[in-house]
Amino acid sequence: MATHPLRIDPPGTLLTDLYQLTMLQGYFERGMFDMAVFEFFARKLPPCRNFYLAAGLEMALDFLEGLRFSQAELEWLRGQGQFKAPFIDYLAGLRFTGEVHAMAEGTPFFADEPILRVTAPLPEAQLVESRLINLLHFQSLIASKAARVVLVAAGRLLVDFGLRRSHGAEAGVYAGRAAYLAGFDGTATVLTGAQFGVPLYGTMAHSFIQAHDSEDKAFEHFAHSLPGSVVLLIDTYDTEVAAHKVVALAPRLAASGIRIRGVRLDSGDLGAHARKVRKILDDGGLGDATIFASGNVDEYLIARLVEEGAPIDGYGVGTHLDTSADAPALDCAYKLQEYAGKPRRKHSEGKATWPGRKQVFRRFDAQGLCCGDTLTLEGDNAGGTPLIMPVMRQGKRLQPSPTLEEVRARTRAQLATLPVTLRGVLAGTAYPVQVAPALEALAREADRLVGLGSQEAAP
Amino acid sequence: MATHPLRIDPPGTLLTDLYQLTMLQGYFERGMFDMAVFEFFARKLPPCRNFYLAAGLEMALDFLEGLRFSQAELEWLRGQGQFKAPFIDYLAGLRFTGEVHAMAEGTPFFADEPILRVTAPLPEAQLVESRLINLLHFQSLIASKAARVVLVAAGRLLVDFGLRRSHGAEAGVYAGRAAYLAGFDGTATVLTGAQFGVPLYGTMAHSFIQAHDSEDKAFEHFAHSLPGSVVLLIDTYDTEVAAHKVVALAPRLAASGIRIRGVRLDSGDLGAHARKVRKILDDGGLGDATIFASGNVDEYLIARLVEEGAPIDGYGVGTHLDTSADAPALDCAYKLQEYAGKPRRKHSEGKATWPGRKQVFRRFDAQGLCCGDTLTLEGDNAGGTPLIMPVMRQGKRLQPSPTLEEVRARTRAQLATLPVTLRGVLAGTAYPVQVAPALEALAREADRLVGLGSQEAAP
Repeated sequence: MATHPLRIDPPGTLLTDLYQLTMLQGYFERGMFDMAVFEFFARKLPPCRNFYLAAGLEMALDFLEGLRFSQAELEWLRGQGQFKAPFIDYLAGLRFTGEVHAMAEGTPFFADEPILRVTAPLPEAQLVESRLINLLHFQSLIASKAARVVLVAAGRLLVDFGLRRSHGAEAGVYAGRAAYLAGFDGTATVLTGAQFGVPLYGTMAHSFIQAHDSEDKAFEHFAHSLPGSVVLLIDTYDTEVAAHKVVALAPRLAASGIRIRGVRLDSGDLGAHARKVRKILDDGGLGDATIFASGNVDEYLIARLVEEGAPIDGYGVGTHLDTSADAPALDCAYKLQEYAGKPRRKHSEGKATWPGRKQVFRRFDAQGLCCGDTLTLEGDNAGGTPLIMPVMRQGKRLQPSPTLEEVRARTRAQLATLPVTLRGVLAGTAYPVQVAPALEALAREADRLVGLGSQEAAP
Repeated sequence: MATHPLRIDPPGTLLTDLYQLTMLQGYFERGMFDMAVFEFFARKLPPCRNFYLAAGLEMALDFLEGLRFSQAELEWLRGQGQFKAPFIDYLAGLRFTGEVHAMAEGTPFFADEPILRVTAPLPEAQLVESRLINLLHFQSLIASKAARVVLVAAGRLLVDFGLRRSHGAEAGVYAGRAAYLAGFDGTATVLTGAQFGVPLYGTMAHSFIQAHDSEDKAFEHFAHSLPGSVVLLIDTYDTEVAAHKVVALAPRLAASGIRIRGVRLDSGDLGAHARKVRKILDDGGLGDATIFASGNVDEYLIARLVEEGAPIDGYGVGTHLDTSADAPALDCAYKLQEYAGKPRRKHSEGKATWPGRKQVFRRFDAQGLCCGDTLTLEGDNAGGTPLIMPVMRQGKRLQPSPTLEEVRARTRAQLATLPVTLRGVLAGTAYPVQVAPALEALAREADRLVGLGSQEAAP
């Protein structure tokens, strides 16, 4: 695990829950190394989401390919006293040797549909649970939120501004990737640009203005320090007064070959300010200068501003995006569905699961819009397009990773298949997902194996 | 920046917003290296918080002490085309050489009260903004949430279970630290234990049960794999049936020297199940076995269960804690308050700030409970206990870091000073924070300096 200065380093194999290690010791001592099948899926959609968007697969595969305990980690475990020496020796040689099947990143998905399946000897498949969920949950969470913003913004420039209130370093970096994947144009987070090639955007902060004795001087100094063209932040003291200053400054800057590309609003009633500022800029001969808005922006506000016809050309979306503020977690899980060839399911109240290795088939109407999914078992052809494909075998990727641009293009095509009822910010008609008879039969079989009645076949 | 296998590695200096770098280039070209004062504070408390709890200072100081651009980072910046060679040479030598004043970790604080002040040459103080907010915001967010849980749980065992749905690796690790600091007993996240010495807790997952053909066998195998004592998860199929299995198993385990320390419930009506299970355990001679509950637990549910007298001895708190689900972000900022000896403030609508270097004085009543704060300027003695102290000078800590146990003990003492109206889960009487005349006068002076009227002195 080498430090790479232009990326977030992997956190190592101790980023797991303690019980994964105590359970592994139990499996090890009983020789329970048979093939296990786990699937990652999300339960019921929250009221403020019409679909989920799959993301995080590339990091999940990186994690599985790199899985191993370092000497320092093994030493630390040895010092804890609850793990026996033969088990720690076993951990030293543990690698991920299994298979992975998954939905492609950027695929919309719905409740109970798995987006990733791990098939591996039980201890391997168990150990990876915590970090796999941590990776898939967060990126799918942000991609799902970002897709909502993209759909309502209808082509306006969208930039991730969320680093400072994202939950730590990795969240800040990966949120920018997830947002770009979902259709954002870029991010302000430099490391996301350096690690993933996501285009970088940035304007200026209030502190730059405040550090100067006058706003005019601050605008002029900032413009001269950037080659070519500049976006100026105009809400530090009085938005419309500042817009007039921008107009007055433009000819002087033009004489130095500097173009005012646009202005940024960051507070107040963004729609009202945008209309006034647009008029000031137009009247001042800056009809080409764009208006970019930020400050507590989310998809609900953008939808309203777009509907009102506010003359805003782009948005910086920060906290609401990077924390998925209206739904900061998805009710997701990674559950054992089969062990040693037998189907398994849990029956806990409100959390029962569908057993077996599953496939999701999606049907499309004549316009190419998706119109219904079927959740069934692998090998049971329910008709339509299967969404879950093999991506890893014997612990190695089957294909080189797609580029992020490829994933983004595929995501755009996928979002274009969503019916109009799912594309807005409000709750749409629920998307139909049916469970195939083959899967219902297997659920009854799984219950019979552990001595439960079949009356509760549906989760 | 060396990889340390038992900690989350720092993400490097590119974890920042692009505009910090473009602004720095502007400062550099104009020779704006005078002393700047920035303060980090939070705006209005959300309706579901009665106080904030300061956390993250230790990581913030680590970040400042280690600040530098690596050769690889400088090369990358050079390749971007928008930064000029003399500026990149300047970045190569940039270190943090300033002062920091701060509230101690574990101090309750309120709207507009700074918890950290940076005094440094403008480019240094500016560059660190994004990561400082990222660190202080997240840990204060989680500590503030955790403190609510601690206050209502009234001494019951509390364990952080949130890694899987925390927002990435760093969030998972630091959430466990913030929760422990606030009074939790431990975490399930192994790396949090390895990095910070936070006590580790763990039981078993449903998959362990499901991987066995019978629940009884799974319990027995798990118990034998752990030396001494064990907590068994009993909700995989039928909670009360499983409780009877535990009772039946206990004598056989006792014969092998294994004690059943407790059981865990993870679904359904936790209070109702706990009452039934308590009776089954008591009737079966397991009066000493504890009941631990998890599954969508937060402070609201714990408060209700405690009030109902549910026989639950401890809680695993996951998603709600690690995402601070009811308030997943705080409205916080890091703002320029003084530059080159002159007070500064922004005037943006709804976001105006108080200028100058500030101090917070806290008053206590005869019972030792805090009864009011005064926000004023450094050097203006408003009476009471000053909360902001020097912690770093010339880029180095003034004192060795306290241990996490020391911080936790201090936090407990601090939480004990909160008046009863702030200690519950519902909104209490707002805590009085008054602004001193000296600060109001400086705000008017700052406005006058940039040519604004004084009619809007209050933010």
